[in-house]
Amino acid sequence: MAAWADYLQAHRQRFLHELVQFLTIPSISGAEEHLVHVSAAAHWVERRLLQAGVAVVRVMAAGTSPVVYGEGPHVPGRPTVLIYGHFDVEPPGRLSHWTFPPFSPVVTGDRIYARGASDDKGNMLIPILAAEALLQTKGELPVNVKFLFEGQEEIGSPDLGAFVEQHRDLLRCDVVLSADGGLAGEDLPAITLSCRGFGALQVEVEAHPADLHSGVHGGAVPNPIHALVRLLDSMRGPDGTVTVEGFYQGVNPTARGPAWARPALEVNGIWGGSSGAIIPARAGATLSCRLVDRQEPGQVLERLEAHLKRWVPSDVRVRVSRLGGTCRPYCMSADHPANRAAGAVLEAVYGSAPAYVGTGASVPIYALFRDLLGVDSVTFGFGCDDENLHAPDEFLRLKNWRRGQEAYCRLLEVLSRPT
Amino acid sequence: MAAWADYLQAHRQRFLHELVQFLTIPSISGAEEHLVHVSAAAHWVERRLLQAGVAVVRVMAAGTSPVVYGEGPHVPGRPTVLIYGHFDVEPPGRLSHWTFPPFSPVVTGDRIYARGASDDKGNMLIPILAAEALLQTKGELPVNVKFLFEGQEEIGSPDLGAFVEQHRDLLRCDVVLSADGGLAGEDLPAITLSCRGFGALQVEVEAHPADLHSGVHGGAVPNPIHALVRLLDSMRGPDGTVTVEGFYQGVNPTARGPAWARPALEVNGIWGGSSGAIIPARAGATLSCRLVDRQEPGQVLERLEAHLKRWVPSDVRVRVSRLGGTCRPYCMSADHPANRAAGAVLEAVYGSAPAYVGTGASVPIYALFRDLLGVDSVTFGFGCDDENLHAPDEFLRLKNWRRGQEAYCRLLEVLSRPT
Repeated sequence: MAAWADYLQAHRQRFLHELVQFLTIPSISGAEEHLVHVSAAAHWVERRLLQAGVAVVRVMAAGTSPVVYGEGPHVPGRPTVLIYGHFDVEPPGRLSHWTFPPFSPVVTGDRIYARGASDDKGNMLIPILAAEALLQTKGELPVNVKFLFEGQEEIGSPDLGAFVEQHRDLLRCDVVLSADGGLAGEDLPAITLSCRGFGALQVEVEAHPADLHSGVHGGAVPNPIHALVRLLDSMRGPDGTVTVEGFYQGVNPTARGPAWARPALEVNGIWGGSSGAIIPARAGATLSCRLVDRQEPGQVLERLEAHLKRWVPSDVRVRVSRLGGTCRPYCMSADHPANRAAGAVLEAVYGSAPAYVGTGASVPIYALFRDLLGVDSVTFGFGCDDENLHAPDEFLRLKNWRRGQEAYCRLLEVLSRPT
Repeated sequence: MAAWADYLQAHRQRFLHELVQFLTIPSISGAEEHLVHVSAAAHWVERRLLQAGVAVVRVMAAGTSPVVYGEGPHVPGRPTVLIYGHFDVEPPGRLSHWTFPPFSPVVTGDRIYARGASDDKGNMLIPILAAEALLQTKGELPVNVKFLFEGQEEIGSPDLGAFVEQHRDLLRCDVVLSADGGLAGEDLPAITLSCRGFGALQVEVEAHPADLHSGVHGGAVPNPIHALVRLLDSMRGPDGTVTVEGFYQGVNPTARGPAWARPALEVNGIWGGSSGAIIPARAGATLSCRLVDRQEPGQVLERLEAHLKRWVPSDVRVRVSRLGGTCRPYCMSADHPANRAAGAVLEAVYGSAPAYVGTGASVPIYALFRDLLGVDSVTFGFGCDDENLHAPDEFLRLKNWRRGQEAYCRLLEVLSRPT
């Protein structure tokens, strides 16, 4: 057994206590009143990296949000691996839906329950613990390691693009390992090869300067909700197929089946009027699309905008605006050397070859790292889809947390060998 | 000049001060924190009736809301007139939209600005002032007068039906005069002969027990907003005609043009999801219909419910519930003796015959008084549609406020004569 394996075994109780401590910080990036806790989590990570023996650690700023950067000892002639994760979490939602309080972690059986246990605090702590085991037992890491942990992932990393662009040299690397991935099942490893692109719009229909009395005016004036539901329904055929001209351009026609292999157009929110007897002045909706293959988000959004403007009735005004950033679909080859290395390690740890999967979600950093750093991202995470991510009673399976620590030690060793 | 006319002239300054005082009470029936002010307004009206010389005045309870009842001196052998109005007001909405604070009345030129100036405090004060002028100059009223002022009109008078039913004997009368009507223009009197019926529904579409991540699931699971917009759009043809089977049954096919002569189906509110990248668990809308001629609200709601249930896609669940009460369309003849009397008085005061109009709005009390008391309601009010009812900067034209006082004195005299 490797020295690092003994180390991991010897310190497993302390590591668990540290995870509990990390999970008590309510670092909710989507709530202004919790930004102080996002900062607290950044400093917790900074101290934890220093404690692990990572010599160079800095809390930096992406916009007004903290980013923790760390750098292991330089190892001449070895490749450089950038490890990515995030220390912010989703809001807990209604506390009454939780069995245990979301920021008072509870360990029961093989599980630890808390907001962020799986997404992503538990996962992002794994490579730090692996680095500690390697550094404390060997005095060095097998490859050059850079750590990049952010506090904006749950709000779409709005400032990370500019940050990466600004610190391109600092972040230069040969490959990214993302500690924000997951398994295909409790005992089934997985490597995510693709994620969908993304773009979002807001559409607002205005019919009147102010709400009108629906008795006095009902039937005689335009109703912006009627126009909006017609507009939205016009984008979809009877079987749900998107009827917006050119929407499917760039989509590989043979792909079928799984959500992540096909594009989608979803209305995410709709609003207008009230329960009162009024004809509202305006109504609106937010829409987002998930894109695949060679679909270009900018082009798809233009086509949606054109459709909305073409279909809008003449007696109302429509305003279409883009919401947040876009990202292109991302896909990397299963044959990428780092993917092959990761696959071999997972097979050794789990006793079965990983599933190569796609995700329907969008992970803007992958396209961003490819565009700005010229490197691909290998997902190397140990949560499962059933662990209530973004939902009440989020948990992480501790056996996979430990397997993950072993897997990261192995992977860093494997990546040190010439391919 | 009649003695009451001299009296009205002599006391006009005091009357205006009283109106200002009445308008300072924020008697907003739709806001729980203002119910104490609805009560204050009821007691203000009680005192004002007593001050006018109305001998029997009582604050009574309709549910938990106050109703002010008053009764003039008994005049044997003369008809009994019930005068209706309301002392509650709409919420002011955003204060920044008001030029003057809504409950600090401002008199400028011929106008008084305040929430409730036109709807309905200014209007309902008119018959009280007229009764005072008659009582103080003649010692009696020309007819038997009952006053019924309520504090729930702006929330649809939910408890008034039970109140009228319970106090049928007390409220027995030959005709109702509604001080909640209006003019056709600044100098153009009007009598409203019809109002539309009403019925409302809430429809909720549920697709999932909880919101889903729109990346992971987008395109692969039902979206309740998609189902809702399809459902709502299915109720209306390309030209806006309602396509719900049987909706127009009972409608006179020759009526055309004005809003109040045709039925309407309006979506008043719609909601679902958020601006986040989710597929919501559920989405919903409120709908209301305005009915005419022989349309039956219960039957129309049943047809809407049947349509919604027939059209709902099989992969979501729909829940349809009725919202609040219903009322039937109301229509009275221009030849009703009290309408003829009112028309003659308005012509004498304004120098032109009144317009006989309908309103697209629904006034549940008219059908209620007809059903429970067996009498018709003549609208006799002096506001104008352009006086920002339910909107910022509500005002009342004082010249019409004074014409109204004269008109009520005259009408009570005319109604005392055998027709």
